Amino acid sequence: MAIQPLRGMRDFLPGQMIRRQYLMDLIRAVFEDYGFSPMETPAMESMELLGRKGVGGEDVDNEIYTFRDKGDRRVGLRFDLTVPMARVVAANPQLKKPFKRYQISRVWRYDRPQAGRFREFWQADADIVGTKSMDAEAECLAVAVSVMKQLGFRKFRIRLNNRKILNGMVELLNVKKEKSLQVFRALDKLDKIGKKGVREELKGLLKAKEMDRMMEFIERRGKPKSVMSRGLDVFTTTVGDQGREELMGIVEKAKVYGIDKFIEIDFSLVRGLDYYTGPIFEMSIESGNLGSVAGGGRYDNLIEMYGGRWTPATGFSFGIERIFEIMESEGMFTQPGTKTDFFVVSVDDDCREEAIRVAEQMRAAYMNVETDLMGRDMKRQLEYASKSGIPFVVIVGEKEIKSKRFGFKDMRSGRQASMRIEQITKHFGEIPQKK
Amino acid sequence: MAIQPLRGMRDFLPGQMIRRQYLMDLIRAVFEDYGFSPMETPAMESMELLGRKGVGGEDVDNEIYTFRDKGDRRVGLRFDLTVPMARVVAANPQLKKPFKRYQISRVWRYDRPQAGRFREFWQADADIVGTKSMDAEAECLAVAVSVMKQLGFRKFRIRLNNRKILNGMVELLNVKKEKSLQVFRALDKLDKIGKKGVREELKGLLKAKEMDRMMEFIERRGKPKSVMSRGLDVFTTTVGDQGREELMGIVEKAKVYGIDKFIEIDFSLVRGLDYYTGPIFEMSIESGNLGSVAGGGRYDNLIEMYGGRWTPATGFSFGIERIFEIMESEGMFTQPGTKTDFFVVSVDDDCREEAIRVAEQMRAAYMNVETDLMGRDMKRQLEYASKSGIPFVVIVGEKEIKSKRFGFKDMRSGRQASMRIEQITKHFGEIPQKK
Repeated sequence: MAIQPLRGMRDFLPGQMIRRQYLMDLIRAVFEDYGFSPMETPAMESMELLGRKGVGGEDVDNEIYTFRDKGDRRVGLRFDLTVPMARVVAANPQLKKPFKRYQISRVWRYDRPQAGRFREFWQADADIVGTKSMDAEAECLAVAVSVMKQLGFRKFRIRLNNRKILNGMVELLNVKKEKSLQVFRALDKLDKIGKKGVREELKGLLKAKEMDRMMEFIERRGKPKSVMSRGLDVFTTTVGDQGREELMGIVEKAKVYGIDKFIEIDFSLVRGLDYYTGPIFEMSIESGNLGSVAGGGRYDNLIEMYGGRWTPATGFSFGIERIFEIMESEGMFTQPGTKTDFFVVSVDDDCREEAIRVAEQMRAAYMNVETDLMGRDMKRQLEYASKSGIPFVVIVGEKEIKSKRFGFKDMRSGRQASMRIEQITKHFGEIPQKK
Repeated sequence: MAIQPLRGMRDFLPGQMIRRQYLMDLIRAVFEDYGFSPMETPAMESMELLGRKGVGGEDVDNEIYTFRDKGDRRVGLRFDLTVPMARVVAANPQLKKPFKRYQISRVWRYDRPQAGRFREFWQADADIVGTKSMDAEAECLAVAVSVMKQLGFRKFRIRLNNRKILNGMVELLNVKKEKSLQVFRALDKLDKIGKKGVREELKGLLKAKEMDRMMEFIERRGKPKSVMSRGLDVFTTTVGDQGREELMGIVEKAKVYGIDKFIEIDFSLVRGLDYYTGPIFEMSIESGNLGSVAGGGRYDNLIEMYGGRWTPATGFSFGIERIFEIMESEGMFTQPGTKTDFFVVSVDDDCREEAIRVAEQMRAAYMNVETDLMGRDMKRQLEYASKSGIPFVVIVGEKEIKSKRFGFKDMRSGRQASMRIEQITKHFGEIPQKK
């Protein structure tokens, strides 16, 4: 009997799960700070939706979980949160615009499992639907930066590009519009296959001279002003110039948010998905080659492709697994291994009922409290509390019950005091934020 | 192009999702109050696990989503959160006992969709693994009651029974032990098929006289004292008497928690699953025929069945959909339709940058704030805030920027004031509870 999870999938035991929850709760809180509201969609969608050509880029069928259900419908597990969101917007034209939704949830891909790659993983998406304004892009960047800062990251950067600038480049290279996606897909593999590989892939499409020109072009990167102020050829094309205008608009607003220092322009940035139509970005940690932790872009035509009205939209996604992995390896989590803050010890069996009453009084003040459920003696209760990493214990014995003052011990410092329960709840209890 | 979710599955738009989150966050908070820690497992499991006979009762294959993955492994989507938990405990003997975990997550069943029944739905489970003590049962009941009270329910009850008492009954009826599950499965359908139906199902197994005796037996229900103090035949069997002792132990502890008034004994309660070995319970709302909102029981052999050491365990599950439905229909939710509390209005285009700065200052105090992303004029910004149900707006105009006092308006009462941003953040901002 196999008792391990399926290949590429994982169990999250409490210690790890507490840290994952902290990460996801923090992202959720920041999304809400910026006025995004939660939404949820089913894990499963029809393949008519998921397999739609011209959206995901490559052959979706081979990369996702897909099967026939008992009604013989072709269905699949969602591979991202953007496609279901586009479907929801298409199906609900009544939604007020801008429609700002977030979704922190799991997705599935039938990838070959490898380090840091899983068949079930979590994404945290925030999208702004219904506005063409670059103010939306700037806000997305501000949200992304705020999350990173609040998680404790100091050195990270945002690489920014625009599909319109890439379209301008393709125009200059005399590549037909319908072939441009081929160019983008090859460029997207630059990190993986190198320049030589890209050249190989585009052999039939670009002549050597144009290939050189493209390679020179995509090497431009750096601070927005220095990269974009040059009189580049690409900005002589209508679409390229429009792309430049948009990026300058984003950078202007980024200054207002105080986040422009994180931004650099990188003309080699493509992002794999076919559906992007405007600005695109990726955020990465500076130290080491850790890859991107977030990325997104504008996809003005996607909702129309799914049968909705034409609706401009932009958004981005955090990769929970990547961020979690980095935070773990950098020792950035400070969460304890348990959610329990207090253990109420009964000195002997006669005190068990009072220990429960004390615990209940503390829980009424929204404190996280355990009592013994194993019939253990006092010594073994204390051992359990200590080994579980529970920071405080309250001691309930005959003497304590009589005096109504209970032993209170900080397990880390070893300090002890004698306190009334009301004192403990006043110090450590909380009034929950009801919204 | 189908833009609706698959049959039996649902999209949760922000308005509804905010209420669902409130419900699930509250349950999570109560679970944590009682020292349960979070855990998560994959959506997908092997059919070797999910299809295991003698666990789920009926023919699992026909009731769940199952398919072959691309590696030709038979896999399925989990149909509950107990089976994966048992697998995790079997695979991780190092887990400290008692292992108290909660999991609030989705499960799938290939049911015929009908009112209140979905193919994808959420459960909230709390389980205590590693103790034989009835203190664990009492704590589970206390957790369940605490959730209900904090959600605002007043009239609900817990029906309590013990598989051991049912086993005693079966023994008295001269049914062979291996046939007892057949009796339980028939009894479990009592509400659905009536007494006549149950009699029909058990025709081959029980004689008319024994059938009468059983029917008389299962009609016993009421306050623990009145039901269980009678000198019932069933308590002359060893197992029945043990079952009685256990229930009395639970009721004793329930008094300490102050929740005994919610408990009644009901000998007709069976709960469908085959794996229960001891006390079982169901919680339901008193008014109307709303069915149970939570249920659970002891399953001491389950973990061993999944290849682990023999490990006693007990736990229960809230049905999120049922509770949500009742709270909706009873108007028990008070959550607004948006998570955004403030909209910062820019009086004209020259004030847009300052509006962003004001919003950022408020977000730094963890307030949920929106600014205009649509290039709307002041009037239409106010309209948006009003229609979205955002309760407060802050007005940023030239005059306000100069005086550093901003217009602050309560959209519900219409009251206005002129305030410094620091005053607003001091009144409405929060310091997040970092745990």
